[in-house]
Amino acid sequence: MDTTTHQAKHQRDLGYADAIAELAASFGDRLSTAEAVRRQHSSQLTWMVSQLPDAVVFPDSTEEVAQIARICGAHRVPMIAFGAGSSFEGHVNAPEGGISIDLSRMNAIVEVNAEDMDCRVQPGVTRLTLNEHLRDTGLFFPIDPGADASLGGMAATRASGTNAVRYGTMRDNVVALTAVLPNGEIARTARRARKSSAGYDLTRLFVGSEGTLGIITELVLRLSPIPEAVVGGTCAFPTVRSACDAVIATIQSAIPVARIELLDELTVQAVNRYSGLGLAESPLLLVEFHGTPAGVAEQSERFGEIAEAFGGGPFAWSEKLEERTALWKARHDAYWACLGLRPGARPIPTDVCVPISRLADCVEETKREITELGLIAPIVGHVGDGNFHVQPLVDMSDAGEIETVKAFVGRMVERAIAMDGTCSGEHGIGQEKRKYLRREHGDETMELMRTIKRAIDPHDIMNPGKMLEAEA
Amino acid sequence: MDTTTHQAKHQRDLGYADAIAELAASFGDRLSTAEAVRRQHSSQLTWMVSQLPDAVVFPDSTEEVAQIARICGAHRVPMIAFGAGSSFEGHVNAPEGGISIDLSRMNAIVEVNAEDMDCRVQPGVTRLTLNEHLRDTGLFFPIDPGADASLGGMAATRASGTNAVRYGTMRDNVVALTAVLPNGEIARTARRARKSSAGYDLTRLFVGSEGTLGIITELVLRLSPIPEAVVGGTCAFPTVRSACDAVIATIQSAIPVARIELLDELTVQAVNRYSGLGLAESPLLLVEFHGTPAGVAEQSERFGEIAEAFGGGPFAWSEKLEERTALWKARHDAYWACLGLRPGARPIPTDVCVPISRLADCVEETKREITELGLIAPIVGHVGDGNFHVQPLVDMSDAGEIETVKAFVGRMVERAIAMDGTCSGEHGIGQEKRKYLRREHGDETMELMRTIKRAIDPHDIMNPGKMLEAEA
Repeated sequence: MDTTTHQAKHQRDLGYADAIAELAASFGDRLSTAEAVRRQHSSQLTWMVSQLPDAVVFPDSTEEVAQIARICGAHRVPMIAFGAGSSFEGHVNAPEGGISIDLSRMNAIVEVNAEDMDCRVQPGVTRLTLNEHLRDTGLFFPIDPGADASLGGMAATRASGTNAVRYGTMRDNVVALTAVLPNGEIARTARRARKSSAGYDLTRLFVGSEGTLGIITELVLRLSPIPEAVVGGTCAFPTVRSACDAVIATIQSAIPVARIELLDELTVQAVNRYSGLGLAESPLLLVEFHGTPAGVAEQSERFGEIAEAFGGGPFAWSEKLEERTALWKARHDAYWACLGLRPGARPIPTDVCVPISRLADCVEETKREITELGLIAPIVGHVGDGNFHVQPLVDMSDAGEIETVKAFVGRMVERAIAMDGTCSGEHGIGQEKRKYLRREHGDETMELMRTIKRAIDPHDIMNPGKMLEAEA
Repeated sequence: MDTTTHQAKHQRDLGYADAIAELAASFGDRLSTAEAVRRQHSSQLTWMVSQLPDAVVFPDSTEEVAQIARICGAHRVPMIAFGAGSSFEGHVNAPEGGISIDLSRMNAIVEVNAEDMDCRVQPGVTRLTLNEHLRDTGLFFPIDPGADASLGGMAATRASGTNAVRYGTMRDNVVALTAVLPNGEIARTARRARKSSAGYDLTRLFVGSEGTLGIITELVLRLSPIPEAVVGGTCAFPTVRSACDAVIATIQSAIPVARIELLDELTVQAVNRYSGLGLAESPLLLVEFHGTPAGVAEQSERFGEIAEAFGGGPFAWSEKLEERTALWKARHDAYWACLGLRPGARPIPTDVCVPISRLADCVEETKREITELGLIAPIVGHVGDGNFHVQPLVDMSDAGEIETVKAFVGRMVERAIAMDGTCSGEHGIGQEKRKYLRREHGDETMELMRTIKRAIDPHDIMNPGKMLEAEA
């Protein structure tokens, strides 16, 4: 380290120390520098290295977050928003240190406007808590990424999940939000009208911005009526391709499928073992329909016919809540179930999304590589959207294997991009996928993203080291 | 005019002349400075004063638009994108002169990806042309603002219309777009995947940006399957409130209504006269359902029951294409039909959108004012979204009346904002509504919008005088 760098680091450390002292003065025991707390506020869920923040602060209100931003801004200290910590892409890591802003105390459901089918929540509310609260209103919040993520985190990463084919993603279900900007100002992006053409779509700018433009401190969410009838079931297919073809035909036939999930044979194996199910161990679609009793019966029948036309089926469906719940619980536990396929290994979970016409190609080529490389890498997919996940299980003590898997993920992303797809369907970019963002978007578009980032966060203190690569 | 201003104006004029000369050298007879052409490329449709550009250029490609942007950028000359000219809010006016970029020659449907249910089009394609082209694919583009607007213009103003309650707005149906930036660079916002969490949502930033950030030169649009069965009809209600209550109950019952439009009694009168229909002259809902034959029958029946529970009905519906077509043609012609209510007068059409629970209040209070002021101002509404239009007809020779109507519109906007609604549901901001944008969003949010505008268009040459008020 040369003298200039050394001095800069010293300056930086002083700034951090001053910021922490100021925060401690205001937040008392709602500020922690304990290592266990800092570790818990770093990436923990996957193979990624944990990078600890210097302190964690637990604000109670938008105004307190604004106060934190003013203090951090004055000392040029990074701010990293923390929800439930369920990100796969290292979003909560603190590669440059700084302050983790844990929003879990901001967990009030401020209002439910049943007639308008919306609600206002603080960002620390989790999706299951919200749905529990909504139970008696006849409404629910449909976005379901599997984990019981915080709604602020789900907005920040533009999360989606199993229901997206019918209900959309966080992009479609956040009506408005309040964000604290790097300078401590508070911006409310929109009002509660269901549509508006009044100004730039700041809501959508913050949804998916991964904490790099500001901290989301309140959300207005769109709710959906709980369907009168729900039926669901499983349908086995001889090949991934036949399953994908059935999905395309289903969607083109305007059958309003609510969920349509692909599990490859390895995932089915893992799920059978973990959840004690007896599913056929071949490529499987898990399907659900929402509607009136007559409507879902008609939809199920039509789907069954399509499945058979593509060599799948029979489509075994049920109206029974317990059976469906067991099935979706198993689907949501697939991540944990798959970990059991190679005890001791760590997952490198990744996802891509392609135009649905290319999904079978993309999954098949990926599976061929998995076989060739001898990887243990189960695949599940939100196939109605063209989105699928691969979860290679890696022996972290084997540097060669880690490199092999990283290269495999790289080729999978290249394949998706070559098919006019995206390097991340729903996990976000975070740390490791930053290098793919330029590949996907090209120089001009990256420069446009950077222009926006620089304008709103000129000192790069909002979740630095995420989404955008460091400037040259 | 003092000397400095005079010199600045002289400099400006020289710059404009140079830009036009350079454009003429490249574009030949695809550049026009003829007054008739310039007039046609200014706001023509409403009471607004026409403000003519200095020249109109007709590019054929994204690269040509980029060339225009480089020339205009070098001389700091405003660029105003022009689609079909159907904006109500003065978007195509040239208050500071400059170059109107007419995109009507860029009218290629580049590709239709039927399996992926999307298509790639140039911005000059109109929605009816696209739907004509799609006819044999079993797909259609659902956004229907009434006018045969260009798809580029619809994206730029975040248009929606009668189908939005089921299919969303342009926000939801533009998958990706290509934009020429003020510096002449070309940015492609996204790829063709149906969802992505890869970077800032630049697509949504440009949708609704009203040409103030760049010129949209290509669009990837989401398509929907043509429903197997469509039924529709009319349902009269004793009051606007009972009609609105029926709409809320319908949507909360998860009946997937495709269109649900309110016409007040004055509009029904106008439409009856203009289109020779014999509709009951009381508040009327026009309703349409899309689905399977059994599905739409069930939906119609349920809607009919709800309507009766709120004192409306009977719901007279039909599967006959001719009858439905006549009805929707009449709805779309309402703008022209209403002009006939006061021959010689000009319309000051305006729209607001409120949370649906406040719609009846907002419409009723607005109607009460209309009566008190003695205005002729028919009302139609996309009531499933909480969005409604008022079209006061004004004697343009009566300055007092113009002021009365402007003040009426101002109070209507204030009322919508006070109900947590928006000053523009689907027409955009353009010129006259700029003053309401700050009222709606507040200082911090306006500053954030301005930060983005300044970063992307530092010299304010992209559609200046629109959406954002002039800086102090």
